[in-house]
Amino acid sequence: MKKVKIYVTLRESVLDPQGAAVQGSLHKLGYGEVVDVRIGKYMELMIKPDGRNVDTLVQEMCRKLLTNTVIEDYRYEVEEAVAQ
Amino acid sequence: MKKVKIYVTLRESVLDPQGAAVQGSLHKLGYGEVVDVRIGKYMELMIKPDGRNVDTLVQEMCRKLLTNTVIEDYRYEVEEAVAQ
Repeated sequence: MKKVKIYVTLRESVLDPQGAAVQGSLHKLGYGEVVDVRIGKYMELMIKPDGRNVDTLVQEMCRKLLTNTVIEDYRYEVEEAVAQ
Repeated sequence: MKKVKIYVTLRESVLDPQGAAVQGSLHKLGYGEVVDVRIGKYMELMIKPDGRNVDTLVQEMCRKLLTNTVIEDYRYEVEEAVAQ
């Protein structure tokens, strides 16, 4: 069993209105030290590989469904997980 | 300047309907190897500390705004960042 952690972030050049809203709220709460906020997604997949290569699988799934590669970047880590 | 990476995940005991929907879609696309999906949030904050401790700041912000500690867990990393 593999545990795959996927981090999806907006590309540097893409505006992040959600991040801007969070930053505004933090300022109102008194955290003026926060000069930038970017919001992304974090996914954990448990995969039971049956022959196919895990890296290939993850990259395919990211391209086809999990990320929008036009505006998002992703990186991932694969860990060995104990089957439950 | 500090770059803080915050990972927010649903607690183990909390149902994740969004994760279940993504898993269903992955199965329909032919990725039956995926046995579980959990969706969380990933945030990057740039912080320019002016005297206050960064760890204290981040924990306060997570408790007050960034996470719902009733149903979510979080962890974070602080990195040194070059001011832009």
